[in-house]
Amino acid sequence: MEAATLQEMAHAIRFLAVDAILAAGEGHQGVPLGMAEIATVLAARHLRFDPLDPTWPDRDRVVVSNGHGSMLLYALLNLTGYAKISLDEVKRFRELGSHCAGHPEYDPAAGIETTTGPLGQGIANALGMAIAEAHLAARFGADLVDHRTWAFVGDGCLQEGVGQEVIQLAGHLRLGKLTFFWDDNAITDDGATRLSISEDVAERFRVAGWHVVEIDGHDLAAIDAAIVLAKADPRPSMIACRTTIARGVARLEGQRGGHSGKLFPADRDAMAATFGWTGAAFATPTAIAAAWRATAEPGRTARAAWSSRLAGADADRRALFERTMAGDLPAAWRPALQAHKARLADEGQAAFSIQTSSDVAALLYDIVPEMMVGCADLEAPTNHKRQLAAFDAADRAGRYIHCGVREHAMGSLANGLAAHGGVIPLAVTYLPFSDYERPAMRMAALMGLPVKFAFSHDSIGIGKNGPTHQPVEMLAGLRALPNMLVMRPADAVETAECWEIALDHRTGPVSLIFARQQLPMLRRDGGPDNRCRRGAYVLAEAEGGPRRVTLLSTGSEVQIALAARETLQAEGVPTAVVSMPCWELFEAQPADDRAAVLGPGTVRVAVEAAVKFGWERWIGESGGFVGMTGFGASGPADALYRHFGITAEAVVAAAWAGLASA
Amino acid sequence: MEAATLQEMAHAIRFLAVDAILAAGEGHQGVPLGMAEIATVLAARHLRFDPLDPTWPDRDRVVVSNGHGSMLLYALLNLTGYAKISLDEVKRFRELGSHCAGHPEYDPAAGIETTTGPLGQGIANALGMAIAEAHLAARFGADLVDHRTWAFVGDGCLQEGVGQEVIQLAGHLRLGKLTFFWDDNAITDDGATRLSISEDVAERFRVAGWHVVEIDGHDLAAIDAAIVLAKADPRPSMIACRTTIARGVARLEGQRGGHSGKLFPADRDAMAATFGWTGAAFATPTAIAAAWRATAEPGRTARAAWSSRLAGADADRRALFERTMAGDLPAAWRPALQAHKARLADEGQAAFSIQTSSDVAALLYDIVPEMMVGCADLEAPTNHKRQLAAFDAADRAGRYIHCGVREHAMGSLANGLAAHGGVIPLAVTYLPFSDYERPAMRMAALMGLPVKFAFSHDSIGIGKNGPTHQPVEMLAGLRALPNMLVMRPADAVETAECWEIALDHRTGPVSLIFARQQLPMLRRDGGPDNRCRRGAYVLAEAEGGPRRVTLLSTGSEVQIALAARETLQAEGVPTAVVSMPCWELFEAQPADDRAAVLGPGTVRVAVEAAVKFGWERWIGESGGFVGMTGFGASGPADALYRHFGITAEAVVAAAWAGLASA
Repeated sequence: MEAATLQEMAHAIRFLAVDAILAAGEGHQGVPLGMAEIATVLAARHLRFDPLDPTWPDRDRVVVSNGHGSMLLYALLNLTGYAKISLDEVKRFRELGSHCAGHPEYDPAAGIETTTGPLGQGIANALGMAIAEAHLAARFGADLVDHRTWAFVGDGCLQEGVGQEVIQLAGHLRLGKLTFFWDDNAITDDGATRLSISEDVAERFRVAGWHVVEIDGHDLAAIDAAIVLAKADPRPSMIACRTTIARGVARLEGQRGGHSGKLFPADRDAMAATFGWTGAAFATPTAIAAAWRATAEPGRTARAAWSSRLAGADADRRALFERTMAGDLPAAWRPALQAHKARLADEGQAAFSIQTSSDVAALLYDIVPEMMVGCADLEAPTNHKRQLAAFDAADRAGRYIHCGVREHAMGSLANGLAAHGGVIPLAVTYLPFSDYERPAMRMAALMGLPVKFAFSHDSIGIGKNGPTHQPVEMLAGLRALPNMLVMRPADAVETAECWEIALDHRTGPVSLIFARQQLPMLRRDGGPDNRCRRGAYVLAEAEGGPRRVTLLSTGSEVQIALAARETLQAEGVPTAVVSMPCWELFEAQPADDRAAVLGPGTVRVAVEAAVKFGWERWIGESGGFVGMTGFGASGPADALYRHFGITAEAVVAAAWAGLASA
Repeated sequence: MEAATLQEMAHAIRFLAVDAILAAGEGHQGVPLGMAEIATVLAARHLRFDPLDPTWPDRDRVVVSNGHGSMLLYALLNLTGYAKISLDEVKRFRELGSHCAGHPEYDPAAGIETTTGPLGQGIANALGMAIAEAHLAARFGADLVDHRTWAFVGDGCLQEGVGQEVIQLAGHLRLGKLTFFWDDNAITDDGATRLSISEDVAERFRVAGWHVVEIDGHDLAAIDAAIVLAKADPRPSMIACRTTIARGVARLEGQRGGHSGKLFPADRDAMAATFGWTGAAFATPTAIAAAWRATAEPGRTARAAWSSRLAGADADRRALFERTMAGDLPAAWRPALQAHKARLADEGQAAFSIQTSSDVAALLYDIVPEMMVGCADLEAPTNHKRQLAAFDAADRAGRYIHCGVREHAMGSLANGLAAHGGVIPLAVTYLPFSDYERPAMRMAALMGLPVKFAFSHDSIGIGKNGPTHQPVEMLAGLRALPNMLVMRPADAVETAECWEIALDHRTGPVSLIFARQQLPMLRRDGGPDNRCRRGAYVLAEAEGGPRRVTLLSTGSEVQIALAARETLQAEGVPTAVVSMPCWELFEAQPADDRAAVLGPGTVRVAVEAAVKFGWERWIGESGGFVGMTGFGASGPADALYRHFGITAEAVVAAAWAGLASA
């Protein structure tokens, strides 16, 4: 049996992609046909991977940021021997339940390092992975951490703003082990790229400090040489690959329709004739299949050597590495956090809400060295840097990433840090800017990544900066997102409890939402029982008779509910206050427990400095609501609360209105 | 009285800003102190404006994209004589109700062309304004339309992805009348810009096709010369102004604290000593004030000449121009749209939902020439281009903007088109990518701009492309946004009605949300009564007795509700179906009307292929809901509807469950 050539191996990607797309009846052939040579040379000559151990910590990471080109990835994974991407799965491309979904869906055990589809975010994830690698290499040494991050990148990824943020930031951070393959096919969905862009993309990367190599993306030797150069350069590398979209399908080659225009069996026949391909559908000729399987051998050897190094490492270092990569926290964090909470409850001091979060973070940083923090140019007002050094080109051991005014890249790179593993990412900005970060937060939720998103400046309480900086709808928007815990603590004790929940929560992201302003201490019980874990709880029970009114609130408005309760109690109305720091956790409680908290038959009034949207779930159709009905305004915070009628008096009035109509 | 110098005029900005910030007790002095010379030279030598007629259509547009520097704008407007920005207002800077809010708030009558604050969006608005100018000049001639757009730009604006999208797109479109003043002060909130960026920003603009001039931003002659060069160059111009942040306040000059560090009276005293300033607080010396007032004279003359040209123009051309700039629609649109609707109802054909929107758009394009459409590289699958030519560097008469894969810039430039006036913007993409555009949608809602946002691919109905491309929470997220009409029509007749509402709606944006898939025609009544205008209405009343069940639905699920109704009716349960294309309009109906539609005392079940969040408003705490509980999946659409249990059978079962517990 003659050894297969790289070109034949590349064609194997092409035919597997076309066969899968024909079977599915739809799909995007542009990328797998256009980037087949690139993927082949990467896998055969350079990629460090072991299909038998897909989650090997020191593997290279591969991201298909142009995620519609998913069949490029599935072909690569299938041909190199990843068990979860079997031929049966490829045959079920785009069918319900297949590991070969329309777009790659995060599953490291299958070799899928991140979910991609919304353009630009994949390369931001790759940036996060490269940061994680550089940082972990500094922590643990190159004998345990020394791998690369490779991303396949389309024109769309580089037009999206987040992609440009990535180019700036990766160049600035000089992440030399990050390499992009730009699929320079001069075509987007609308047609020629000249419809919407005129810039020299390669030059744009150079300006940002990248190493750029420009090649023919179908020239196997040129691809290899470019990768060799990329590996040798201390800057991140962009390999600009001039390609022909849908190369091989003559009818669509280089055309707009090459992207995802419908394929027919005749296209496959023509391509087979052109390339002299003898394989039947889904049948890669034996020699070529063998050559593909052989690409995994260097990685297997490297993996074995790595395992030996790990096994031979100092026991403490090994244990720390293994714990870190497994995502298990050191045991000391919980007692420390609980002691902190007990101290807070005992002292009973008012505190700036966002500061209560950074106090917890600063406490955790020393105990949980895998925490890394990104912040979008708001270090001082959010104050989550504390004792951390900056992660930058000079100091890879630093743990604080100055992300610049780039919220979207921040969120997406945090997803990349989490997907890489070994790092627990915290991303910090103001809540009004969460809209910029939201696309990344959605992906964290979809992937189930344990990213901690923290926000300050959560309401009109920020005052004079005005409505652009005052969230009113963002709480509702985040609560609507599946698989996202949204937590808005009312005081420093609740902050500590919410942070405890956040660290325990490993199946998805959390949003920790804080006020800018000072909040009084409402909770004086500092015991180990985490009341926030139930999502909502009776903070102050009705007195003097059966409960008639239930006031529901979160965050900075809980103090208003408590003040209203005082009045109502004085007026002879037994009134309870329920603090609801996390709706999602409350929703997950048994129905009876929920009912006991909400007080069936009582008049319910909610107070939150945000829109009502969603509150009907808890107050019912006839419940009262004191909050915002539109955007905020510029003025002192106390004047705004009065102006918008978010006061204890208004809550009392709403309660009486409810009692009157009950 | 000796004539004041430009330098003295610049100092007048400085002192007004510092006096206002001292009075407010807080504010951002960095920009007004750092860009005072730039603003002065612009206003005194180049800016085309008339404070006595702030909304003169042919005025230059000024955008302070670094919106925290709002006092730069207020000082400029006050000193040049805009009545709404009186000294009394400036003295109330950042107080509730002042026209001088913390960040500039859109009010053309005050000279405030757009709301800024969230960084990067201001320059995207400016891009839209420059597009509007170029297009209207092509439509109406340079005698009526010939003005420039100037933007003050901070480092943050250029780090945000949307800013980079703007750089690419503006360079591509060669908008020669767009000029940026980059406040190159090497400082952001975190400190030195080198913490987060290494690139040569000027070079980055050059790569994108911009004309760049690099100057000392405090050198009056250099600023003037640079503006002269900018005006002469056919490319958009970026004037890189090397500045000292907080120039004049010695304690903070060039420092991180210069941005918004607290000012004290002693800082003002020191600055007065440095600059030999004799004016008391808020008292600009007479000669300097007079020089500032005189800057408006050339504009007043230009405005008078322009008015003469307009008065002397052909009556039809003049009427068309005035109608267009007033935002009044030509009368013919409504009869045409209603005739279209009548025809659709008569024919009763099923149709692809997004296509029903582009059918309406294509009908309107010829009647409403002020409609311009932007699309983020999805021309073919959304099909809203139709007969429109592309707006590009070669054809300013074109009305379709290939925005590239840049949703955020698309939305923000649409806001700029609307803020400019004379253009009715429509921005089109898929609903799953609305998160990328959302920051712009929020600003449209906050400003009350009549932007039409249209979306296709609104649910799991898109099928095999999987959960990244399947909105589940986005309807709720948009419904939570104040001042945004969210409309999801159920068939082509509702599409026509929703479009009618959209064109009538001038006090805020609308979101028109369409499915990718084909929807049957449900409505056969094509009369002029626009039933969608009530937000929700009884599409099919219960028969055979008093209504016992009310099924509520929107968009592609209304057909499922109708099928469930058939079953329930057959089972002897009088059941109504309510179509709810627009919650916001329904909420605005009289309570009795709402109750009549919702059917008090009936069992209510909602069906929508999205999360339940927010539906409790209409179904109550105990109502049934058939929809999504999490993210979607990759698979054929019909399989997904079955998999997630969004079926007529499930709706029937939920109704029976409700009847059993009632």
